Amino acid sequence: MIELKARLIDISAGARYVLLNSRDADELGIHPHDRVRVQKGPKMATAIADTTNTYIQSGEIGIFSDLKSEMEISGNEKVRLSLTSMPESITYLRKKMEGAALTREEIHSIVQDIVSHNLSELEIAGFLISQQCKGLSLDEVEYLTRAMVKTGETIDFERPVFDKHSIGGVPGNKVSLLIVPIIAASGLLIPKTSSRAITSPSGTADTMSVLAHVTFTAAELKEIVSRVGGAIVWGGALNIAPADDIMIRVEYPLSLDPRTQMLASIMAKKIAVGAKYVVIDIPVGHGTKVSDPEEARRLSKEFIDLSERLSVVTRCAITYGAQPIGYAVGPALEAKEAIEALINPDAAATSLVEKSTAIAGMLLEMAGLAKRNVGQDVAKDVLTSGRALAKMKQIIEAQGGNPDPSSIDYGIGEHRTQIEAPSDGYITHVDNSTIVAIARTAGAPIDKGAGVIVHAKRGHKVKRGEPIMEIVAERTTKLSDALSLALRLKPMTVEGMLLNQFPEY
Amino acid sequence: MIELKARLIDISAGARYVLLNSRDADELGIHPHDRVRVQKGPKMATAIADTTNTYIQSGEIGIFSDLKSEMEISGNEKVRLSLTSMPESITYLRKKMEGAALTREEIHSIVQDIVSHNLSELEIAGFLISQQCKGLSLDEVEYLTRAMVKTGETIDFERPVFDKHSIGGVPGNKVSLLIVPIIAASGLLIPKTSSRAITSPSGTADTMSVLAHVTFTAAELKEIVSRVGGAIVWGGALNIAPADDIMIRVEYPLSLDPRTQMLASIMAKKIAVGAKYVVIDIPVGHGTKVSDPEEARRLSKEFIDLSERLSVVTRCAITYGAQPIGYAVGPALEAKEAIEALINPDAAATSLVEKSTAIAGMLLEMAGLAKRNVGQDVAKDVLTSGRALAKMKQIIEAQGGNPDPSSIDYGIGEHRTQIEAPSDGYITHVDNSTIVAIARTAGAPIDKGAGVIVHAKRGHKVKRGEPIMEIVAERTTKLSDALSLALRLKPMTVEGMLLNQFPEY
Repeated sequence: MIELKARLIDISAGARYVLLNSRDADELGIHPHDRVRVQKGPKMATAIADTTNTYIQSGEIGIFSDLKSEMEISGNEKVRLSLTSMPESITYLRKKMEGAALTREEIHSIVQDIVSHNLSELEIAGFLISQQCKGLSLDEVEYLTRAMVKTGETIDFERPVFDKHSIGGVPGNKVSLLIVPIIAASGLLIPKTSSRAITSPSGTADTMSVLAHVTFTAAELKEIVSRVGGAIVWGGALNIAPADDIMIRVEYPLSLDPRTQMLASIMAKKIAVGAKYVVIDIPVGHGTKVSDPEEARRLSKEFIDLSERLSVVTRCAITYGAQPIGYAVGPALEAKEAIEALINPDAAATSLVEKSTAIAGMLLEMAGLAKRNVGQDVAKDVLTSGRALAKMKQIIEAQGGNPDPSSIDYGIGEHRTQIEAPSDGYITHVDNSTIVAIARTAGAPIDKGAGVIVHAKRGHKVKRGEPIMEIVAERTTKLSDALSLALRLKPMTVEGMLLNQFPEY
Repeated sequence: MIELKARLIDISAGARYVLLNSRDADELGIHPHDRVRVQKGPKMATAIADTTNTYIQSGEIGIFSDLKSEMEISGNEKVRLSLTSMPESITYLRKKMEGAALTREEIHSIVQDIVSHNLSELEIAGFLISQQCKGLSLDEVEYLTRAMVKTGETIDFERPVFDKHSIGGVPGNKVSLLIVPIIAASGLLIPKTSSRAITSPSGTADTMSVLAHVTFTAAELKEIVSRVGGAIVWGGALNIAPADDIMIRVEYPLSLDPRTQMLASIMAKKIAVGAKYVVIDIPVGHGTKVSDPEEARRLSKEFIDLSERLSVVTRCAITYGAQPIGYAVGPALEAKEAIEALINPDAAATSLVEKSTAIAGMLLEMAGLAKRNVGQDVAKDVLTSGRALAKMKQIIEAQGGNPDPSSIDYGIGEHRTQIEAPSDGYITHVDNSTIVAIARTAGAPIDKGAGVIVHAKRGHKVKRGEPIMEIVAERTTKLSDALSLALRLKPMTVEGMLLNQFPEY
């Protein structure tokens, strides 16, 4: 045990880190990544040590910001430091790496240590990669889900809660902005928590943030939903299943997305808001996360089996995802498309209306508000009658936005350019990942007004020189970057008339 | 692309890192862990971005020390920054995570990016964990070995080179300090590169550093070995197979040691010094890395199969490793025991002399200097004749140490305490990992004079109150810490006379 003078390092390292002078570390037998115990008066925490020859002098200890706030260290005071043993959960990580099954208690201990910032990103990656490599049994996925719920906040609405979730992968998927008001207008509760985009041009939270606030506490969400029946908020601010938010930070740079973790994360977020009836949207097709229907069916079965163990009734919607939903991609463009579809569904993109009402219909059937196979008709009715629009106005107002659709300022980018069809023919392919890349290059989701509008979808007949796509940006530099990317990558394929012979045209 | 003012952060992050203000990062669409291109005049490098709200102001860029030295950034100058794509090797990491086989080029690209600090510790962990989970084929291990050799320095001695290596796990294993002089005294070349302790009380490099310098360049090693036939140096300074040193930094905190990586790392270090004949020491028994002989045989076969592909002749020595080799554990104590064994082998610990001459004998047989099965006799002859001692003096002198055994100052700790037998009986167990923990608590390997001397080994008859173990330390605080640990953990088991009936006593 030695006493060192605290020196603040105002960098968030994602876990509790301290920085020691190499000489002091040698003295204590501490190697980089070793666990240390830091004490200040009665306060105590374990942290992970790193070493330096120069930045921190001997006799000092660098305190990164996560530990600083937790231990209320203000700098220059003395803290005591000693080597300590690893958290027990590391033994369980290793057990999983070797392929053994983990118990309920072991999985809870890992998740608890993730949430308490006791595990480094390296160690969390170890857990996720070993899930990917060795898999988890359904028992283990259940334990993981329950542990993720338990280590965060939960909301009890004291009434059955309905919810939907998309596993993602298809651009322009603004369906929640139609589904939530349809369900809420039908008298059901639907507290939709959603994410911000990480690799896509717009998450549902990004799209909704064009219309209203999306950052609320759990108590505020409960109040809003109890009052108007529905809400679309950003899940990250709620502290529900916070382990997921931490794990995503590690998954992203490694492009990791172990299926078992995805199952647990999605279900944990639903259970934390008390959902009893859930529809999972699984988009299938080239460029989505699930490329073939067989895999989608397997995944559906896993969702349903897991849900049963958690006393949640889940149905899965295997949906067409090989091209964008609707025409708009990007936060403001998508918000506008969704609101316009609520105002005038008949003029809206068929793919958007069909998908939204199909999923809403499943929820209505589960609620007993529609007979089997007529849920979509009932949902369409709620939509065309204007009740969904009226409900959306209430939701937007409850979330502090402008509820008058005629005066919404979407803030759509002022700089636009068209892509024209290079020849007469039919659109045979609209490439999801290329559309995503162009929309992001144009500035989405950071520039909310940026994105892409596809004017033609697969199967449409186009004439040479006819606009097939439009790029929208807030800044001219981004517009020209996105345009050159589009001209290089060719997001849409136009094929000549000869292809007409294939059945699909 | 934006221009930012460089601000130095004097912390080595193990890879090229930059720190951006979150606002600038958002502006550029950069997430933590994204790859960025940093340019200063004509100089250019890719780095990994992290973000902060406070430490780095908007318009600034924090440059960690790895990138600072590489790009010669002195602070306050302008550097240009843009988002760039990931190195291609990340695709291959992912391919391995999914269990696919990698090609020669793919593995080379991963290793090259590790050595060039293009991969973060997270990504390197991804490679190592997926090796552990999915395994590598012999083809892949061969590619990995060759890539590790190619991405570092190599030494060409222009004569056949002999070498030995222990996979580790048994304390007190100072055999290289006998084997190297025996082999060199026999007229063969043996440029022994060795490691410093990470989790043990003394690596061979730590032990040798008590007697002489161990930090040399490849050119210096070549000069020494060409002149006196042998050397025992620290491998870390030589830049041979540097990928290994980087990967060890990731393996250590995760307690990872994938067998395929171990095979490749060991063979790469041997091939880099031009070894053509190699003996691998595989200690077996409770508390070592390999607990049963069957596993040791499998591992031996892997070493031999891999070596054949690399045109190296390898034999494996499966050795008894269930208790320390000799009596001393800790750098200075082990150095003294080795030198005394060279001076008077008859008085030395049987385990030390037998193991050293057995391995040396295998090398002599491989060299054709002894007939099959008589190598050990020839090696013992070199040892007892004093020729090994004379050679060790030359080696120590060539490495800048004091070559006069009678006047060596080992610097053994002045503080000592004895552990006594609690009853009459036989020693039935000497626990490797407990001995290691006590020696490290006493200060080894940082305090070179600290360690443990076991006075009695398994099977020895002891009387109540007789000293069975001694703890040595440079500092009284460490001595008392180590003593209380010893009293708590009981490193040696003394059983009553009844156990006498078992064949082993």
